[in-house]
Amino acid sequence: MDIKQAFGDVLREYRKQVNLSQEKMALECDLDRTYISLLERGQRQPTLTSLFRLAEVLKVPAEDLIAETRKRLAS
Amino acid sequence: MDIKQAFGDVLREYRKQVNLSQEKMALECDLDRTYISLLERGQRQPTLTSLFRLAEVLKVPAEDLIAETRKRLAS
Repeated sequence: MDIKQAFGDVLREYRKQVNLSQEKMALECDLDRTYISLLERGQRQPTLTSLFRLAEVLKVPAEDLIAETRKRLAS
Repeated sequence: MDIKQAFGDVLREYRKQVNLSQEKMALECDLDRTYISLLERGQRQPTLTSLFRLAEVLKVPAEDLIAETRKRLAS
């Protein structure tokens, strides 16, 4: 599994945990819905700024998303 | 302070802690020296992939760089 796909999987899981649709998530992050979809499918990778915005909306520290991504890469 | 500058400061500090020049760091990360310089000056932001590569060379978990960046933004 590559980094982008690992991150995408983490993002999708965290998003579902807070019961946000991709549309709602996109709106709250002020990002494009297509971008969220591409991130979740591992076809884009977030910039540092996007990472912080996503984490804020998910109400988790940004480093948690990275730690979780790294765990999946290692497993 | 913005996210990019906070990250740049963290990167510079961690790089100096392991006694790597920008040139050496760039070489070990397989990234451009100019890119490292731009990152440290807050003029670029790393992608997820670059973040993981930088962390690997710095021998720290990638999430530590993010946690440290977030701390500085909050302070």
